[in-house]
Amino acid sequence: MNIAALSGGVGGAKLARGLALVLPDGALTVVCNTGDDFEHLGLPISPDLDSVLYAMAGVSDEQRGWGRSNETWSFMEAARQLGLPDWFNLGDKDLALHIARRQLLASGSNLTDVTAQLASHLRVRQRLLPMSNAAVRTRLDTDAGLLDFQDYFVRRRAEPRVKAVHFEGASTAAPPLSLGEWQPQLLIICPSNPFLSIDPILSIPSWRDWLRHRRCPCVAVSPIVGGRALKGCAGKMLREFGLDCNALSIARHYGDVLDGIVIDELDRALLPDIRALNLRAMATQTIMNSDADRASLARAVLTFGETLRT
Amino acid sequence: MNIAALSGGVGGAKLARGLALVLPDGALTVVCNTGDDFEHLGLPISPDLDSVLYAMAGVSDEQRGWGRSNETWSFMEAARQLGLPDWFNLGDKDLALHIARRQLLASGSNLTDVTAQLASHLRVRQRLLPMSNAAVRTRLDTDAGLLDFQDYFVRRRAEPRVKAVHFEGASTAAPPLSLGEWQPQLLIICPSNPFLSIDPILSIPSWRDWLRHRRCPCVAVSPIVGGRALKGCAGKMLREFGLDCNALSIARHYGDVLDGIVIDELDRALLPDIRALNLRAMATQTIMNSDADRASLARAVLTFGETLRT
Repeated sequence: MNIAALSGGVGGAKLARGLALVLPDGALTVVCNTGDDFEHLGLPISPDLDSVLYAMAGVSDEQRGWGRSNETWSFMEAARQLGLPDWFNLGDKDLALHIARRQLLASGSNLTDVTAQLASHLRVRQRLLPMSNAAVRTRLDTDAGLLDFQDYFVRRRAEPRVKAVHFEGASTAAPPLSLGEWQPQLLIICPSNPFLSIDPILSIPSWRDWLRHRRCPCVAVSPIVGGRALKGCAGKMLREFGLDCNALSIARHYGDVLDGIVIDELDRALLPDIRALNLRAMATQTIMNSDADRASLARAVLTFGETLRT
Repeated sequence: MNIAALSGGVGGAKLARGLALVLPDGALTVVCNTGDDFEHLGLPISPDLDSVLYAMAGVSDEQRGWGRSNETWSFMEAARQLGLPDWFNLGDKDLALHIARRQLLASGSNLTDVTAQLASHLRVRQRLLPMSNAAVRTRLDTDAGLLDFQDYFVRRRAEPRVKAVHFEGASTAAPPLSLGEWQPQLLIICPSNPFLSIDPILSIPSWRDWLRHRRCPCVAVSPIVGGRALKGCAGKMLREFGLDCNALSIARHYGDVLDGIVIDELDRALLPDIRALNLRAMATQTIMNSDADRASLARAVLTFGETLRT
């Protein structure tokens, strides 16, 4: 079995967790956005990769939505006292991951190998890949100027109005595996922000070409439920781009990358309009508050994906 | 007022704390051993400098004897899980200091400036200096081979038998200030390990020359009390060098660097032998279990130092 998923952080990480729970060991490859990556306090930060890693390892914090469970914050307290910038939170346990990543990168490993080593230490039994070992950096053209992702998203709490999104370095970035030989049975686009989490992956020419010529069905799960994004700024961005904040806009955005889309029960009324785009669509419960929810949605997506093969 | 002190870690840090408590702001300069410094997990570690810094800031852990008070250990727990080496303990708050130091050094500041900035953030109102901005590395020739300081002291718990101590880089290292113009009224050698904490400073030619031609009295406080070192391996090393484990051996070791020595009440019987070395000597309570003890010993040493000027 060979299932692939494209994912951003929080929402994508939840479905990745669900897929990891229901699939046999080694059957899943999650390709993760690294457009949000940056260096902070001299440490290489990969927010989405870490959210997925922690989720798949079962150590993510359910309440906070990011970082590790049972986290402590002594480092941040002392960092503030010592005059270090404190706009980006790093928990004490989370710091260990970042220091390990820096050490491994400094020893000459690439991000793919480093991620595999970290995942192995956390007993993750599925494959987690960065979208590229090369640096691709998401920058936002906003009414407050051209902003780095973290500046926009964390420091300015996604408040500036977004006009366009750029992925610096994407045109020359290579995927971390040989795509010519890679033939998963199903590709799942996780319920992540399409503009900030999935588009960075699709902005890499080899990934885009692979999707165009893929031999497997591709199914997305809508991150928009009942007219709003469950997390993050996908809803706000849809509106800023003059689009309706619903699953139909998500389906239109991905266009012919998709064969099908899974939307929430709450949005069942959109099914005819989505199907009019010549897309297969199904509605189910997509809100994931527990591992049971995650596993259940994962099963539904896998079953729906099977039907797309015919 | 201008008082200077040479110090290693724990014992020296306690007297430095006492001196900081009783002297006016800015009257004290502590010159600290950096022979124990090393890099760990990509971070620049300065054990003695940090012990003195935390002590002077009043944030050191009294029970443990090193590191910060109210420390937490989540980082170490996660580091072990991620396969990072765990033989050297770094608390969560302590990590912030190391990350700040690395950031400041990476921005081009030297260790003296970095130390001053960190001390300022921790509201230390006396001057703390590394013995040099250059790397001087203490290495021990032992029955287990030539060992780096931390390998000997932490990893091997100071168990190998020491034959000799080397200070690599000392011959070309410069002090962090212009010694020609530096004229403190009194120089205090703190109750630190003479071989591992004070000798590294004295191994730097400019420091040694300055001590030889100094215009102020120099008084040491013996780290050996009642036939044993209160902390660390000074006692063990004295015995390995074939010397008696007492304050007389300390006085002999420093030789004509000293004008006087302060020993513990418990060792009062050694006063005649020490005075026979043509040294002034006094006995007082030198064990420092509280800030009151530290201030009291600091006052006694300062008063004794005054008498040496005549």
